[in-house]
Amino acid sequence: MEPKNTPERGDGAPSPLNVLARFLRGRPLANREGRSREISAGEGVAALGLDGLSSSAYGPEAALSVLAVAGAAGLAALGPIMLVILALLATLFASYWQTIAAYPKSGGAYTVAKENLGVNASLLASAAIMVDYVLNVAVGISAGVAALVSAVPSLHPYTLPLCLGILALLTFINLRGTLDAGRLFALPTYLFIACFMIVIVLGVYAAAASGGHPQPVVPPPPLPKAVEAVSLWLLLRAFASGCTAMTGVEAVSNGVDAFREPHVTNARATLAVIVVTLGILLGGIAYLAMSYGVMAMDQTQPDYQSVLSQLVGAVAGRGVFYYVAIASALGILCLSANTSFVGFPRLCHIVAQDGFLPRPFAAVGRRLVSSVGIIYLALTAGLLLIAFDGITDRLIPLFAIGAFLTFTMSQTGMVVHWRRLLRDKRRGAERRRLWLHLVINAIGAATTITALVVIVVAKFAEGGWITIVAIPCVIVLQRAIKRYYDDIDDRLRDEGPLEFRQSKPPIVLVPIREWNRLTDGALRLAMEISSDVTAVHLAALEGPDVNESEKTLREQWDKDVAKPALAADYPNPPRLVFLSAPYRRIHAPLLKLIKEIEDKNPDRTIAVLIPELVKHHWWEYLLSSQRARRLRSAVLEYGGSRAVVIGMPWHLTEPKIEQGMTDEEIAEPFRIRNVLRLRRRRSSRSRDAG
Amino acid sequence: MEPKNTPERGDGAPSPLNVLARFLRGRPLANREGRSREISAGEGVAALGLDGLSSSAYGPEAALSVLAVAGAAGLAALGPIMLVILALLATLFASYWQTIAAYPKSGGAYTVAKENLGVNASLLASAAIMVDYVLNVAVGISAGVAALVSAVPSLHPYTLPLCLGILALLTFINLRGTLDAGRLFALPTYLFIACFMIVIVLGVYAAAASGGHPQPVVPPPPLPKAVEAVSLWLLLRAFASGCTAMTGVEAVSNGVDAFREPHVTNARATLAVIVVTLGILLGGIAYLAMSYGVMAMDQTQPDYQSVLSQLVGAVAGRGVFYYVAIASALGILCLSANTSFVGFPRLCHIVAQDGFLPRPFAAVGRRLVSSVGIIYLALTAGLLLIAFDGITDRLIPLFAIGAFLTFTMSQTGMVVHWRRLLRDKRRGAERRRLWLHLVINAIGAATTITALVVIVVAKFAEGGWITIVAIPCVIVLQRAIKRYYDDIDDRLRDEGPLEFRQSKPPIVLVPIREWNRLTDGALRLAMEISSDVTAVHLAALEGPDVNESEKTLREQWDKDVAKPALAADYPNPPRLVFLSAPYRRIHAPLLKLIKEIEDKNPDRTIAVLIPELVKHHWWEYLLSSQRARRLRSAVLEYGGSRAVVIGMPWHLTEPKIEQGMTDEEIAEPFRIRNVLRLRRRRSSRSRDAG
Repeated sequence: MEPKNTPERGDGAPSPLNVLARFLRGRPLANREGRSREISAGEGVAALGLDGLSSSAYGPEAALSVLAVAGAAGLAALGPIMLVILALLATLFASYWQTIAAYPKSGGAYTVAKENLGVNASLLASAAIMVDYVLNVAVGISAGVAALVSAVPSLHPYTLPLCLGILALLTFINLRGTLDAGRLFALPTYLFIACFMIVIVLGVYAAAASGGHPQPVVPPPPLPKAVEAVSLWLLLRAFASGCTAMTGVEAVSNGVDAFREPHVTNARATLAVIVVTLGILLGGIAYLAMSYGVMAMDQTQPDYQSVLSQLVGAVAGRGVFYYVAIASALGILCLSANTSFVGFPRLCHIVAQDGFLPRPFAAVGRRLVSSVGIIYLALTAGLLLIAFDGITDRLIPLFAIGAFLTFTMSQTGMVVHWRRLLRDKRRGAERRRLWLHLVINAIGAATTITALVVIVVAKFAEGGWITIVAIPCVIVLQRAIKRYYDDIDDRLRDEGPLEFRQSKPPIVLVPIREWNRLTDGALRLAMEISSDVTAVHLAALEGPDVNESEKTLREQWDKDVAKPALAADYPNPPRLVFLSAPYRRIHAPLLKLIKEIEDKNPDRTIAVLIPELVKHHWWEYLLSSQRARRLRSAVLEYGGSRAVVIGMPWHLTEPKIEQGMTDEEIAEPFRIRNVLRLRRRRSSRSRDAG
Repeated sequence: MEPKNTPERGDGAPSPLNVLARFLRGRPLANREGRSREISAGEGVAALGLDGLSSSAYGPEAALSVLAVAGAAGLAALGPIMLVILALLATLFASYWQTIAAYPKSGGAYTVAKENLGVNASLLASAAIMVDYVLNVAVGISAGVAALVSAVPSLHPYTLPLCLGILALLTFINLRGTLDAGRLFALPTYLFIACFMIVIVLGVYAAAASGGHPQPVVPPPPLPKAVEAVSLWLLLRAFASGCTAMTGVEAVSNGVDAFREPHVTNARATLAVIVVTLGILLGGIAYLAMSYGVMAMDQTQPDYQSVLSQLVGAVAGRGVFYYVAIASALGILCLSANTSFVGFPRLCHIVAQDGFLPRPFAAVGRRLVSSVGIIYLALTAGLLLIAFDGITDRLIPLFAIGAFLTFTMSQTGMVVHWRRLLRDKRRGAERRRLWLHLVINAIGAATTITALVVIVVAKFAEGGWITIVAIPCVIVLQRAIKRYYDDIDDRLRDEGPLEFRQSKPPIVLVPIREWNRLTDGALRLAMEISSDVTAVHLAALEGPDVNESEKTLREQWDKDVAKPALAADYPNPPRLVFLSAPYRRIHAPLLKLIKEIEDKNPDRTIAVLIPELVKHHWWEYLLSSQRARRLRSAVLEYGGSRAVVIGMPWHLTEPKIEQGMTDEEIAEPFRIRNVLRLRRRRSSRSRDAG
């Protein structure tokens, strides 16, 4: 069973599969390496700002696709709507600027709501953010693919598979850890900003030079005919959709502690860069769309062109620059999902530590990220993409509600925060400063809640109800989980000091099938533990064969156990008992026996000693009848709290923990460890050579 | 966590889901109920003959689909080919008639080859039969669906989903056990025989009355134009395909011990009924196809009509009788797969007992069938159906080779069998009888091997190579499995009588996280077992929080353990040790500690005591960090053979094995048991009332 030795290597050579697995998974990271995972302000723009910046690629388009029914009049309405959105953005910026300083650990809506509004509000906030994170992944990826199919229309039929492929890639990258991801994502972010700044400058110049009616290089498709007049209802719906342009702005405040010291300064710098850039992009895109007459198209149609694609074509033509710009949009849009992959596991970790999510979400994986959270996020986002066929426009209504609910919770929490501080502080200048903070956040809260109401009303029928149903479900689930953990904690509460009374050793039962080394070892171990040992033979079948094997076993027992015990004058030799299982489930008669012994010995523990063959390969599981495992679970599950199970390993090859092994090596399974050892030896050899 | 009590019931009420599960799975069957599972000769025709009889539905069609390229001349060649096939069938009948008497336990090719030709031949035989069984399921179902889409052409696009649905249904029925299946399948079998006997009688009468050229009621499609002349190669290929008409004849000899006493008589009666009926069907179908001018069509085309469908239409028109006949053909064809579901797990059981298949195949499930074998069969057949799109014609080449390889192995084995008997017997009459047996089987072997060679040559390129590759792979796998088990058995061999020497109790380690009831109980149990107990605190994370919790734990330990031990003047109070896990995998530092203790105490066992919360619901697994399970496997896998694990259960609700419970009740998991109890109470109540 040991790996074969080859002449040039002293010990186990890794298989190519192990080397590959090692490469893909990376080495395990120690706790102390956590610090170097922190990000600078510059990296922050890429790692936490992608979401906010990329919103510019679908926000204006979302508003336009509502306005499309009103034709040219609809396009003209984009201007005022975008001005309102920019005003909202400025309010949010001011609010979050304060939040970062007030909550330098991690000022996410969950933390803010928990500290200021109580548990219920914090659960509402966490549910809203979670839903929001999931939708951000789905929308980001689907909008990215929309950009891709605009540039390469032949890929249009593969929209959904493309979405899922990108999702899988992102998941994999994030399972490897934050820093690597941040580096990888910086390039498309800065490329995107550069490209669209150029487009905006060129476009605005052309528009100004031509008196507001520039000649497009590649003309966009003609505006659709108006089938509806511009009504207040239409404007509200367009505004509600357009609000998705602001999503992701909160990411920085959620991840303040991911920044290098000083947290607050770095985070604020990142936030400022993101918001200003986003504002310019949104304003520029809206202005150019109106100048060049660009309208949103239906993504399900094969001739679909995204608004950005039409714009770049109109301003700069379809040359190399077009493809670079669209590639950067594809990159930033798909990777905007990454904000969620950083934030979602982080939030789940905090919520799970509070007991409102299953404990596995709180576990830190081998690469210092919460693997469970990442995988869960990927699965739910994947389901959403499949359910909505990867069409951005269908996901937008769900998205806007979650995002604005989060904003509102966060702002309201901050208002309460300042009020509490105001209650304590009495001095004039300090009070005035706090009042200013309060007013800023109150304005933020008022505007976001107004926007939220508008969005809920405008988007309810278009899919918004799904978010509105999902959020209470998440809250109910969280409460149930918390109740379960609290229940366990209550029951586990300590009852006082340990009693030191003389107690009898357990009664040991050893289930055996035949007489061999395993039986031998098990009986020896049983006799070490207790002087009251009973071997139990369980016959799963009936008939003459069984009687035969029973006879053989009894003879062997006499020869190998009973007689030697008599000869050695051993005080309490093990006994042998036969049980039959008419229903073949060997645990049934054993459980009855345990019950009888428990009733006769009310003060003693019954230990069932189960020897088991230790498996080192997956295929060994297929070859085993899993008898030891089943017996073990049956006794633990139904034997009551006085029935314990002793698992005795039996190895085909004795495993070795060598003296000099590092913790990193022991932390990895054996086969992967061989790769490690090899790599170390190679690097030391090349050092010797060099 | 207990099920809620309702006023009218004293204890746990079953959920509707449990009642449903109970109904679908049936009650568990005791070993003694095995006898009543045996089948009579009449039931045998349905349970073991379906496969053979249903071959008439695809065998002639398979031959015709090869001949189709030769048009009318091809159709005329069907007569001679079918005569050869009928002659082969007669030979097989005579051979198996003898085999049944010679191997009344179970005369399958595997047993016969093992006893007469050695291990290698038996492995070849078993591999051939297994492949054959799988293909029989795939071909039976796909041909059944072909009949269905002939009658209802609108179902044609759903060929594959229909195949898979029927496969799932069959799997489910067979997991419930043989007898119920036999009963369920009798009706379509007898209906099929009746319908097609009527068609043959009517058709032959019409043909005779019209001088060989009867007027079809619904004319079949015109014969295709000949694009190829009738060549020897074409005839050989048509014969090779047509040979699939004989598959399934061996099923009776494989299942002799499934019959009621007297096994041999019942089995022979069944075999005779099956072969004679099959002969009449094959001859009749071939004669009618030629008289009415019916040719095979392409199953992938939407206007496809199976040969049987065309025939019934031509003879009897498309009235009620047509639909009854096609329904019976659908029934028998789909259910012919059932022969495999009876035979395959039975064969796997025998082969697994010999150690050539994984042990789980030898396990008898709760309904007295080998569930693993059934599920495995269903999966492989499902894969074949998917790979070949559920088209019968593509599966036929693979099928014929396996079947005839099996025939050959069985016949050759019988020849050796008789020769061995001849060596011992010297008397005249007895010798002559044995010689007769030998000659009959030798003729069988010679003809089947000839047919096999023809089939291999004719069908190699059409997919036959898949079977030819698969069979050696199965053999290699079987040998590897046997080697693994033999290796384990060798190492487990007993080394002599048990030693009775005075040995020290194990050193017990108790991993703890915080101080609670669980820790309390674990330490008490540890002190029952040994006087050498160490509590180990494993910190997965680092930093100030951890130091804080370490301090708390140490204080609690002093208060609850150290001081009481001092006060009670306890000789060896438990110690407390702190370990940190820089890579968060808590098992690494624990394994190092175990290794150190093992080195210091070379003659002692180290027991790691792990308390674990017993889970009674699936969702509890999602809520748990699986820490106990992981720690347990790490210690067993890497701790060496002196490190054992003690699992201590901790229950939220104490489980109860009540005194009066029957074995049947204990054999079922708890929730399902509630249904049982309820049902019993209800029936006793209704008895009281009545």
